[in-house]
Amino acid sequence: MVQQERARSTRAAIIGAAARIFEEQGYGGTALAAVATEAGVTKGALYFHFPAKEDLAVAVIEEQHAIASADGVRVQALGRPALETLVLICRGFALQLIEHSVMRAGIRLTFEASAFGHDVRQPYLDWSTRFAELARTAQDDGDLRGDLDPEAFALLIVGSYTGVQMVSDILTGRQDVLERLADLWRMLLPGVVAPDRQEHVPRLVDLFLGAP
Amino acid sequence: MVQQERARSTRAAIIGAAARIFEEQGYGGTALAAVATEAGVTKGALYFHFPAKEDLAVAVIEEQHAIASADGVRVQALGRPALETLVLICRGFALQLIEHSVMRAGIRLTFEASAFGHDVRQPYLDWSTRFAELARTAQDDGDLRGDLDPEAFALLIVGSYTGVQMVSDILTGRQDVLERLADLWRMLLPGVVAPDRQEHVPRLVDLFLGAP
Repeated sequence: MVQQERARSTRAAIIGAAARIFEEQGYGGTALAAVATEAGVTKGALYFHFPAKEDLAVAVIEEQHAIASADGVRVQALGRPALETLVLICRGFALQLIEHSVMRAGIRLTFEASAFGHDVRQPYLDWSTRFAELARTAQDDGDLRGDLDPEAFALLIVGSYTGVQMVSDILTGRQDVLERLADLWRMLLPGVVAPDRQEHVPRLVDLFLGAP
Repeated sequence: MVQQERARSTRAAIIGAAARIFEEQGYGGTALAAVATEAGVTKGALYFHFPAKEDLAVAVIEEQHAIASADGVRVQALGRPALETLVLICRGFALQLIEHSVMRAGIRLTFEASAFGHDVRQPYLDWSTRFAELARTAQDDGDLRGDLDPEAFALLIVGSYTGVQMVSDILTGRQDVLERLADLWRMLLPGVVAPDRQEHVPRLVDLFLGAP
């Protein structure tokens, strides 16, 4: 049991160290020896857990998706209306990007995944499905326009989010990522919120920015 | 003169061949020998023009930006109102993505550019600046809301475009890229077009989709 516990904590330390190095150096620039040093483990221990760099990259991507999904579950458990839930999930994702190197490394590796032949469709499909469900409920609640296509809206959120945070990373090292994503909500919500709920738009943008 | 002409056409053939291989294999997976074979030139000729893989990747990125910029100039020369010009530039960009492997390769290489230490900020800054100018003119024309922040709108277009085409590539190999980008305009325009010009929104979406 103690041994299992130690193996788990070594594995977690390696993933954390790998994330910090993948985030800075990318897949191609990361050496397993540097990850072992950063994690404070022997190369033998590293190879025991992750025989190849690809295994380590896939573990970071899976950890990133697990963190983001768990936060989505946390937000849904708040039991707020579907449109607020969607906005708050997106806020959580942005905060995690700012706070966790595993998130930033996972996203960088996802963009580079063709370099190691990893199929990255699943996280995009998972988020599209979850957002489309929330959008359908928000339509039933009367918060989103009745003529909105929930799948198209979900794909637009996923695509825009992906690109807006990426361009923010390229231009400002994600210094302005919250503000740029708030702009997405500011300019997008008027076109998708039901005509008789337009007065809620500023409150939803404030919610994204941290209002209670 | 004949020699200069031949050198130019060899260089163009190499860039075209490199684009086809970079698009499929990415930066890490592309071998210069394969590019020489695809271009029908000797390895010596390839190395004469591009001493390192990085030089070839930068040439493809620059060619992509040159093609896209030239198309932007073509659209601006049509002399249409600024908001229509912006929509048509974005249409041209989407069509080029579908038609030209140099565009697709350039974008893939831009996403992977950290692998070869190339600074990719300039194209994003160029497009943001140009779109912000068009947005300011469209405000003066009364087509965009007076309280819109033109820089924020420009950055949102650049970011959303980047991500929407990327997610379309991941999920459908860009089969649905025009439709996904039309959804961006459908859902975004109502929130940014001036209240008394809302009836133009469907026409602008049709313009993006190819209406005259």
